[in-house]
Amino acid sequence: MGKVYTQASVSLDGYIVGPGGTGFEHLFAWCTAGDVETPTYQAERLTYRTNAATAAYLRDLLDGTGAVVIGRRLFDATNGWNGSHPLGKPVFVVTHEPPQDWVDTDTSFTFVTDVVEAAVAKATAVAGDKHVGVGPGSTVGQAIRSGLIEELRVDLVPLTLGDGVRMLDGLTDAPRTFGTPQVIEGIGVTHLTYQLS
Amino acid sequence: MGKVYTQASVSLDGYIVGPGGTGFEHLFAWCTAGDVETPTYQAERLTYRTNAATAAYLRDLLDGTGAVVIGRRLFDATNGWNGSHPLGKPVFVVTHEPPQDWVDTDTSFTFVTDVVEAAVAKATAVAGDKHVGVGPGSTVGQAIRSGLIEELRVDLVPLTLGDGVRMLDGLTDAPRTFGTPQVIEGIGVTHLTYQLS
Repeated sequence: MGKVYTQASVSLDGYIVGPGGTGFEHLFAWCTAGDVETPTYQAERLTYRTNAATAAYLRDLLDGTGAVVIGRRLFDATNGWNGSHPLGKPVFVVTHEPPQDWVDTDTSFTFVTDVVEAAVAKATAVAGDKHVGVGPGSTVGQAIRSGLIEELRVDLVPLTLGDGVRMLDGLTDAPRTFGTPQVIEGIGVTHLTYQLS
Repeated sequence: MGKVYTQASVSLDGYIVGPGGTGFEHLFAWCTAGDVETPTYQAERLTYRTNAATAAYLRDLLDGTGAVVIGRRLFDATNGWNGSHPLGKPVFVVTHEPPQDWVDTDTSFTFVTDVVEAAVAKATAVAGDKHVGVGPGSTVGQAIRSGLIEELRVDLVPLTLGDGVRMLDGLTDAPRTFGTPQVIEGIGVTHLTYQLS
């Protein structure tokens, strides 16, 4: 069985979004900072260009993920990626009120009105031997508190944003320690993979 | 001439102190997580035990630092290390009101009632060819904003603290980007060294 992981590009001061929704050009600059190409499911829309180490890290995620769980805010912010998620894998959206007018075009979207555990369980069943990616967003905090996240992948960006949305907020079970991470050195990014369980 | 650097043990969620002054046993667990010994100036009070990579990183800091700049809060919290700073180097304390009853016993303490720039200038003059260490604490934010810090050393600890004192607060000049860090992998810690200028 695969792992349940979460991944986020995070500034050195801990933000995944800058003040007023800014900062993305800095947070994701590493995605195109090198010359080794890693195409996603929709290569013309998103092809990473990184060093070889980051490319291997990304390839592992892209090939290894079987389903995705996100919150409603990310779904709305991306407009459901206009029907086509970059991973090309089924997406489970945790939401109190599913949109009434949504029709799948490419990616399969499932709206889960239950707790995040239920969405992760559904995603795990669909993912089979592959990983389930959760988040980013507030869903991640819930999932970590519930002990659902097995692996935390932090793409640490040499950047301060000063304010915004924090990666790890509302962790009411802190302090919590975990083991030494696996480290992969990219260009303008340090990939840190922590095992949470 | 040496560099002006700051160094801090930081939790993955960005804190250098946990809620209510807690968390130090976790933040500094890496200091004694291995079997390579790195004695400080006062070996009987503080000898690091780490892996070899961390030991080299620490040796470089311990031998390479010629003076230290701190804020009043840290001075008070440690009671001036009872007169003897672990690095055994002159300490410059930025404070509005110098203590009236302080008498140097071992380490030389100088109280600077001017801005942090003045303290760093004094420390740099004393350090000669060696580095000046600044902080940790609110002095660091001031020094970064003033462009005084050339090197930022983050000892990133696999830990969430949930709340407390943040490493990089009040960076009003954010967003600010810097280069890919040097990475050294310790036991229960990842040493990230960023060049700020």
